[in-house]
Amino acid sequence: MNVLILGGDGYLGWPLAMHLAARGDDVTVVDNSMRRQLMERHATKSLFQVPSLEAQCRIFASLTGRSIRHVAGDLREWSTWQQAVALSKPDAIVHFAELPSAPFSMLDRESGMLTLTNNLTVTGNLIHAVHELAPQAHIIKLGTMGEYGTPNIDIEEGWIEIEHKGRRDTFLYPRQAGSNYHTTKIMDTDYLWFYVRAWKLAVTDLMQGPVYGIFTEQTRLDDRLLPQFAYDEIFGTVINRFVVQAVLGMPLTVYGKGGQTRGYLNIVDTLQCVTLAIDNPARHGEMRIFNQFVETFSVNELADRVVDAARSLGMEASIQTLPNPRIEKEEHYYNPAHRGLRELGLHPHHLSRTVLTEMIEAVAKVKDNIRRETIVPQVKWA
Amino acid sequence: MNVLILGGDGYLGWPLAMHLAARGDDVTVVDNSMRRQLMERHATKSLFQVPSLEAQCRIFASLTGRSIRHVAGDLREWSTWQQAVALSKPDAIVHFAELPSAPFSMLDRESGMLTLTNNLTVTGNLIHAVHELAPQAHIIKLGTMGEYGTPNIDIEEGWIEIEHKGRRDTFLYPRQAGSNYHTTKIMDTDYLWFYVRAWKLAVTDLMQGPVYGIFTEQTRLDDRLLPQFAYDEIFGTVINRFVVQAVLGMPLTVYGKGGQTRGYLNIVDTLQCVTLAIDNPARHGEMRIFNQFVETFSVNELADRVVDAARSLGMEASIQTLPNPRIEKEEHYYNPAHRGLRELGLHPHHLSRTVLTEMIEAVAKVKDNIRRETIVPQVKWA
Repeated sequence: MNVLILGGDGYLGWPLAMHLAARGDDVTVVDNSMRRQLMERHATKSLFQVPSLEAQCRIFASLTGRSIRHVAGDLREWSTWQQAVALSKPDAIVHFAELPSAPFSMLDRESGMLTLTNNLTVTGNLIHAVHELAPQAHIIKLGTMGEYGTPNIDIEEGWIEIEHKGRRDTFLYPRQAGSNYHTTKIMDTDYLWFYVRAWKLAVTDLMQGPVYGIFTEQTRLDDRLLPQFAYDEIFGTVINRFVVQAVLGMPLTVYGKGGQTRGYLNIVDTLQCVTLAIDNPARHGEMRIFNQFVETFSVNELADRVVDAARSLGMEASIQTLPNPRIEKEEHYYNPAHRGLRELGLHPHHLSRTVLTEMIEAVAKVKDNIRRETIVPQVKWA
Repeated sequence: MNVLILGGDGYLGWPLAMHLAARGDDVTVVDNSMRRQLMERHATKSLFQVPSLEAQCRIFASLTGRSIRHVAGDLREWSTWQQAVALSKPDAIVHFAELPSAPFSMLDRESGMLTLTNNLTVTGNLIHAVHELAPQAHIIKLGTMGEYGTPNIDIEEGWIEIEHKGRRDTFLYPRQAGSNYHTTKIMDTDYLWFYVRAWKLAVTDLMQGPVYGIFTEQTRLDDRLLPQFAYDEIFGTVINRFVVQAVLGMPLTVYGKGGQTRGYLNIVDTLQCVTLAIDNPARHGEMRIFNQFVETFSVNELADRVVDAARSLGMEASIQTLPNPRIEKEEHYYNPAHRGLRELGLHPHHLSRTVLTEMIEAVAKVKDNIRRETIVPQVKWA
């Protein structure tokens, strides 16, 4: 299988590239290093010293004998697409090439507009690139569970049948997100859905929950193969941040009441899910949507679990409540379906104490790299 | 009232500017002439010889004593916003500054991406401009009935309550449009709705149907005050195109079965509706949505009415069916609500024979300007 990974330098893109190359796929990664540069500019930095993507490809090849093709380029430019598609001849294109941070998207006008224009321009170019250059390719687009927000009805997998005044029709499940970034993902969905109908694209939309974890079969091979791992207030996700706070002996900071509930998954399950989607493609003219998470937790439950794991290692750990910088419901109904990927064969990994203690131990080894001042939230929604 | 009109050079923007200035509002228009330039490039041209926007403002002032402030600038650039908002100090901002053509948006990659990036960048900048520079301003955004598509259930005004598995919540009415352009308008809606919640913007979204007509109280003052009037396959709307075809003695061209049904309104009712929205602003934190049309017709019904009006003037007129270049349902359920603007005081004008014969006579006077070769559809959806 020839797979083109857009955004191959990211927390998920790089481990996926190694995972697919290890099983024998022909893998091409494209990235313009925007995320690395933005992390530098905002004084945050990956926890691990991650070599350049080009160097990581070299290291991975030397350790495994498997090569990953690397294109350094900006997917807002058409010439990057011409180059990448010509080299990859993709059967599947996995689209991670978006600015993925809610706080970054709310930071200021420049960051907000960059999130909007970057994400939509890349998705627009993707659609034209498949239409013009790779019409058989299956598009696997990373969406987010955040597109649904926290409605007062059950969240279905992408679609809903509505009965209204005695008539029925099926629609995209209503989406209303809680940040600029998450809203750009709704816009992606709208845009792809039009072109699925017009141009018979084959699209799988993976509505992913927050991902946690560090280790995959390939990232364990060598510390230089570890992914970008963010824990700061701008680019970090909640479980990764809690682990870092526990290692520092800082209180785990819960925003508001902590009843905010989401669906989470381990990074190894992200790799499984994307691989299942690649191996079981959508039909042309089909927009197939899966909710990609394994189990739901409130923020309070996550904090309790990380505290428990830290204490099991003999560490001090406590929880502190901060005023919520976001505008979101802090207590709400949340019952999202997630059957499709299980039916395709996902074997889920759960957030066990063992998973958390392994993460804590790995982070503790590089404790000196942590920039404590980047953790406390500064970006406010309003 | 200080009103800033984005896209003041358009078919609707310019008549609105005159209408508001005539009643004493302080009116500022902004435009970058993109639409004129694109019409030139695609060998289509307004039916009337329309002076530059700057010249039209001068002519209007000399005839009425009312001045309209003109800013020549591109709203994708922040400096244009700084200038326009400083000059206007707007109470209301009317957003027409988008590429509004479905066929143009489907023409090729360049046109498709320009539609996407222009429309979203202007809307994004609008949101930041209001937040930073004019926080009290009421945003009046021109949406389109095309956002709803042709669902098999009644179309409500913007919102719908959904009962699902015994629970209820209210959502944006589901949207699924029939072109790239119409999809960018859905994306506008998504984006504004997020910032209404986050930043308490005051937004009215006018879901407008196709507009027809030439004459308003002000365009009647002088031929040089007529609006850009497109009848070609790319920028023209259906009634205007049928009138031009009748004047040429060409058959009126119906795409496919002709059962495509939409809600239409006269340009004078567009002016009424926008003015009603300006005078009755949305609250801060409210996204108020009105369906803006007066009556629904199928394409076949419209063709019959134009044929009838042409024959009443002693002209030959006939109807021809062409293969549909679009992907759309040609026979479908269509029952959209449109109460809100009536409740605010709209006095609708209907598509009478008199309205059509007056249009036909006005077009006949400039028959020599018509470019017959631009009428037949070349742009195909797939």
